[in-house]
Amino acid sequence: MPRYKFTLEYDGTRFCGWQKQKTGLGVQQALEEALQAITHERPDVMGAGRTDSGVHAFGQVAHCDLGCDYALHQLQAGLNHYLVPHGASVLSIEKVGEDFHARFSATRRDYVYKICNRRAHLAIEKNRAWHVIAPIDVEAMQEAANNLLGKHDFSAFRDSQCQATSPIKTLDAFSFSKDGDEIIAMVSSRSFLHHQVRIMMGTLKQVGVGLWTPHNVIEILGSKDRRQAGPTAPPHGLYLTHVAYGDIEAHGPIIVKN
Amino acid sequence: MPRYKFTLEYDGTRFCGWQKQKTGLGVQQALEEALQAITHERPDVMGAGRTDSGVHAFGQVAHCDLGCDYALHQLQAGLNHYLVPHGASVLSIEKVGEDFHARFSATRRDYVYKICNRRAHLAIEKNRAWHVIAPIDVEAMQEAANNLLGKHDFSAFRDSQCQATSPIKTLDAFSFSKDGDEIIAMVSSRSFLHHQVRIMMGTLKQVGVGLWTPHNVIEILGSKDRRQAGPTAPPHGLYLTHVAYGDIEAHGPIIVKN
Repeated sequence: MPRYKFTLEYDGTRFCGWQKQKTGLGVQQALEEALQAITHERPDVMGAGRTDSGVHAFGQVAHCDLGCDYALHQLQAGLNHYLVPHGASVLSIEKVGEDFHARFSATRRDYVYKICNRRAHLAIEKNRAWHVIAPIDVEAMQEAANNLLGKHDFSAFRDSQCQATSPIKTLDAFSFSKDGDEIIAMVSSRSFLHHQVRIMMGTLKQVGVGLWTPHNVIEILGSKDRRQAGPTAPPHGLYLTHVAYGDIEAHGPIIVKN
Repeated sequence: MPRYKFTLEYDGTRFCGWQKQKTGLGVQQALEEALQAITHERPDVMGAGRTDSGVHAFGQVAHCDLGCDYALHQLQAGLNHYLVPHGASVLSIEKVGEDFHARFSATRRDYVYKICNRRAHLAIEKNRAWHVIAPIDVEAMQEAANNLLGKHDFSAFRDSQCQATSPIKTLDAFSFSKDGDEIIAMVSSRSFLHHQVRIMMGTLKQVGVGLWTPHNVIEILGSKDRRQAGPTAPPHGLYLTHVAYGDIEAHGPIIVKN
């Protein structure tokens, strides 16, 4: 059974998140149905990250096993025939070794969070950025973000529904930049708790608009209490941009396709 | 009658272009109807550029005269109540002198044209970029674009419907940049012929994919024959980003609002 690795882009507004849902179409289900339509198999697809409804992806990764050796370009074209009308696109397909696992082999997940900081409503970036009207001090947000870098118990930034066995995570990067009224945060970790990025962004926004100080964020982290942190930032500002597999060469020959 | 200058953003996919149309909603009409709903006047709105259906704007400018002195923030909020559901947003409103004219006072128009150069279909940038599959040589496009800079007879890059009295225009800037699979062209001129940017982009794309050389573009320009140039690039890659009014200070006190 050859194992296939898929890299996907999707407009999160058009899906009920990554996971299969009873209430609507998850990207996982859309990919499984497209695979079934083309291969007449119904494989179980495993994703690198369970993005929430509304969260976008430029580089979600998934894998599954299929019974045959498929020509990768034809498989990609066939899948996109079904996926593109839903708002998703397979960017590349690779054959990987059977020890490759989209979720457990991942060594780093990169997210981008986009804020549009201005008075006027968003027309072009509607559903693609968090619209914040109150003026934001990006340097204060960066100072607060620096307090979260490294290995910590992130219980204060963990949704009550989180199923992770441990709240200990290591934040590798959390950097802010500003271009006009657009504020971009880039955040990286091997893995995140449920809603961690959105709760961190909702908390840092309170710092950005002057309600809290960067020092308050140290206290919130230390409290390990979700109620001390800020509101969960909206999903539509969040993009899963890249999933890294550091030792991917160990998983057998890779045929990179784009 | 105070004169008002409006700066607007809109998603071109959701309008039949800037101008009032019998076949659908133009941004101009949407703005006039919103003004009527709020002020109970029905002013004629004049825009800086008549963007085609599908063309987006981050900084379209328009003006009109209204019978009263309106509080600008309230006027903006009221207009956006009507415009945002259509896919447009008033970014700012200023009061200007009566000799200010959105179209005729403009000293420079800046456009961005966005190409996504990859095999896979676009999910997130659908209707926001031109999807070109064949690999593009951006340096060749830049070399060809350099041949168009300056003052020329742009008849070869002029739509047959163009109503301009002269085909002579001066191209001030035409620069390309590449970031991953995204290619961005920035092009500036005091004014453009009808479809000029899109025909130039369609022509340079032929250079980018290796069908034509940068030297061919000199010959096309010299021919003054639309049939020698490339196809008109699709509207959804084009963004009107900024309209400059060089001597705007001469038009009376400006109250900048955002």
